[in-house]
Amino acid sequence: MYLSKQDIQSMQKVERLNLINSLSGVKPANLIGTKNQNGNENLAIFSSVVHLGSNPALFGFILRPQGEVRRHTHENIISSGVYTINFVTTDFIQNAHYTSAKFDSTTNEFEKSELTPMYIDHYYAPFVKESPIKMGLQFVEEIPIKSNGTTLMVGQVEHVLMPDGTLNDNGHLDLGTLNIAGISGLNTYYSLSKKDRFPYVRKNFSLEDLKSY
Amino acid sequence: MYLSKQDIQSMQKVERLNLINSLSGVKPANLIGTKNQNGNENLAIFSSVVHLGSNPALFGFILRPQGEVRRHTHENIISSGVYTINFVTTDFIQNAHYTSAKFDSTTNEFEKSELTPMYIDHYYAPFVKESPIKMGLQFVEEIPIKSNGTTLMVGQVEHVLMPDGTLNDNGHLDLGTLNIAGISGLNTYYSLSKKDRFPYVRKNFSLEDLKSY
Repeated sequence: MYLSKQDIQSMQKVERLNLINSLSGVKPANLIGTKNQNGNENLAIFSSVVHLGSNPALFGFILRPQGEVRRHTHENIISSGVYTINFVTTDFIQNAHYTSAKFDSTTNEFEKSELTPMYIDHYYAPFVKESPIKMGLQFVEEIPIKSNGTTLMVGQVEHVLMPDGTLNDNGHLDLGTLNIAGISGLNTYYSLSKKDRFPYVRKNFSLEDLKSY
Repeated sequence: MYLSKQDIQSMQKVERLNLINSLSGVKPANLIGTKNQNGNENLAIFSSVVHLGSNPALFGFILRPQGEVRRHTHENIISSGVYTINFVTTDFIQNAHYTSAKFDSTTNEFEKSELTPMYIDHYYAPFVKESPIKMGLQFVEEIPIKSNGTTLMVGQVEHVLMPDGTLNDNGHLDLGTLNIAGISGLNTYYSLSKKDRFPYVRKNFSLEDLKSY
């Protein structure tokens, strides 16, 4: 089956949205938690978190050009300078997905979604208690993407919270054991099963070495 | 278990790399195919493809500040204006992972990795024949990320190739049925199983409605 740029442009909006969102493959399912200056908590699901670098530890995520989700999350990050990224597990995907509803700014998505805000000392943004892996970030910069008006929000990891024993040898996390969920498209959730872990591929390493690893 | 920014900074390099790469959750496994002006093909694995928008259909991916992978992929995209994004399946993860070896510019990663270049008329960049879902993109812009010297490369989808019958109702793709792989960290590969697909959450929709969907 072949689709050209013109075929894609002439699709119906919902079909095109689903197709193009699916074509980015499996994406992480994360809840981003913020709080405004009046103390109102905000929580929203995102599938665009991307690793930018490890030293310093930087992550990005994409904010759409407009809409309520953008506005609350963006305003709170700019005003408070902090936000949390919380992993969604297959145990609470309905709750997590429910944060995508369009609530007004006084509505607390934690309450609406039956998820529990959690705080640590000296850090303003709320974590999601139900999430096994929680990160607290400091906002670093926002980068406009001129091509379509979206924004790349960049932050540095300040805090990591995870269950004892989660960190495997050499700093790896097994996402499958923790029931971490993935997303395809806008609203399809996947569970993960570890298939293989390979070594860093050195120059004298052959493909056969890798296949027999 | 709690890790602070200072704990992360004082970790050994490899452990920190693995941890921070793991903390972005599950990521898509993609092979990016390019060709230089002498006709030399290049293929490299990336786990940073991110959806930017559906109309126009735009994707981004992150290039690290330096190194061979960056240099060849970046040079070829700038000189030819095109590149392909090909989905990795669990059937050829060893081959796909092997493209991460540091080859020189005259080495053809397709040959080294035993993957097959495939072309369509009037499009310069090579697709990966073994990949069930292939996209041909036109380069749009590169955006420097000042915080750490990485680059966001932005492209528009010009061509989509996929097996007949892959496109489900409303434009969804089932990544599990196609054996699409996900990545965590730098080198851990996952298979995917579809758990649930939810509707768009409208205002009058309750969490109970979603749970019983």
